[in-house]
Amino acid sequence: MTEPDRNAELALLLEVAGTPKPGNVDRHRDLDDLRFEHFLAGAVGARDGLDLAASGAAVGPAFERAVEGMAAQKGGNTQFGALLLLVPLVRAARDDLSQPVVESVLEGTTVSDAAAFYRSFEHVDVFVSEPPETMEPLDVRRGADAIPALEDRGLTLLDVMDRSVPGDDVAREWVTGFDRSFTAAERLAAADGPILERTASVFLSLLAERPDTLVAKRSGEAVAAEVTERAAELHERDAVETDREAVEAFADELVDRGINPGTTADVTAAGLFIALEHETITL
Amino acid sequence: MTEPDRNAELALLLEVAGTPKPGNVDRHRDLDDLRFEHFLAGAVGARDGLDLAASGAAVGPAFERAVEGMAAQKGGNTQFGALLLLVPLVRAARDDLSQPVVESVLEGTTVSDAAAFYRSFEHVDVFVSEPPETMEPLDVRRGADAIPALEDRGLTLLDVMDRSVPGDDVAREWVTGFDRSFTAAERLAAADGPILERTASVFLSLLAERPDTLVAKRSGEAVAAEVTERAAELHERDAVETDREAVEAFADELVDRGINPGTTADVTAAGLFIALEHETITL
Repeated sequence: MTEPDRNAELALLLEVAGTPKPGNVDRHRDLDDLRFEHFLAGAVGARDGLDLAASGAAVGPAFERAVEGMAAQKGGNTQFGALLLLVPLVRAARDDLSQPVVESVLEGTTVSDAAAFYRSFEHVDVFVSEPPETMEPLDVRRGADAIPALEDRGLTLLDVMDRSVPGDDVAREWVTGFDRSFTAAERLAAADGPILERTASVFLSLLAERPDTLVAKRSGEAVAAEVTERAAELHERDAVETDREAVEAFADELVDRGINPGTTADVTAAGLFIALEHETITL
Repeated sequence: MTEPDRNAELALLLEVAGTPKPGNVDRHRDLDDLRFEHFLAGAVGARDGLDLAASGAAVGPAFERAVEGMAAQKGGNTQFGALLLLVPLVRAARDDLSQPVVESVLEGTTVSDAAAFYRSFEHVDVFVSEPPETMEPLDVRRGADAIPALEDRGLTLLDVMDRSVPGDDVAREWVTGFDRSFTAAERLAAADGPILERTASVFLSLLAERPDTLVAKRSGEAVAAEVTERAAELHERDAVETDREAVEAFADELVDRGINPGTTADVTAAGLFIALEHETITL
């Protein structure tokens, strides 16, 4: 069996290659300053951190290392959210990649993991919203400066994620036992065709279900809702298979409008990892 | 500085993503049974062997391990030739990635490296020609069965490569101090534009210079010569930049005709590695 850190890296590569993934960088689309090759370099750069997680390191430091390595390319943030899902999954896969084991990994996170998470924001610009006033001392954009406040309140990384919901569907995975990630893995296994087609279908199915929280943060909730509605219409008629042109046109339109459902891509990457690890998809 | 094994993996990923690369799998083209995702999995699978080379392991065993890992996907041979170039380059990069150091790595190969090279053919089907009669006991298709003959004759891996020239331009790199690979690296650094564009231009420049030896073996020398002539015509007028459509059409035509200039892709991957390692290209 392949080591979990290998599968995690491969999941990142398959995710970005899956096409059409409306609004995101994919095999056939670049954004202005964020290109396909930045994701390739980001996936390779994340290796050290993923290796650490697979070796049993704590989630926070492994994540920080993964982000630092990922960010060693000029495209900026490529896979921050995906790594925030993959690192605990890789850690769990050392034992057994099941929802209960993942939950126990999350519950085992400490204040020190939370501190590493905050430090990771110093390696790369991540798009985040203004926090509510009571959370201002814990604004992630403060980076390591927020660590004393974190320690005062005794917040673990799981606590931090808990406070980031609603409004962040990566954090939501942390508090729901990675429900959508495991669902995505099942859909990938059940789908037909080459893996990059399946990836596109599953991405669309996820986008059809819940408004993407990155889109909501950047473009507003109305836009996020519109994107989900249109994705649902395409997904209902299985358009990746039956009307490819419509999905391609939707993908181009979202890229043109600068609307990137990045959170949905993160969950897709997590699903790919779970399916690879469970060997329900093989290449 | 990034570790050489990371850069080698990234070179494999950038090579396959470079487009248009006439006749080969690229960001926009799959072959019938050999798809883009097989190359992604092949690159990740090669990690252990590349790690070994970066840690100072002997070239033969590192290569065998890389091939074994690369072959753990269903597409078949994706990067055998590229790894035969990358492994000694990674080994040299531990000290200094210059032509003299690469040559000393090659000269340091032993009979035992040659034996590992022969064993590597048991992990994957590689397209090779009938050997001349005197070389029949050393036919690589015999795999490990050829090792006694190899030992009788006391042939090192460099000796084996020496006997594979002419007719195999990967082996030719071994006996010419990786001349074309270093030239490819210079061209990648001198070219303009995003790296995947540069990769396409440099691939075309290499194809324009010498008939691809994999094409010659599979489709005959006349076809290989025709491909080179047409590549030269496109390269002379800088068609990747000035007449993209013509290069795309040529790429589609070669894929349709089942003509894959795989050796040229191998040298391109080696050039990418050298340029990454020398930091004359950055992402």
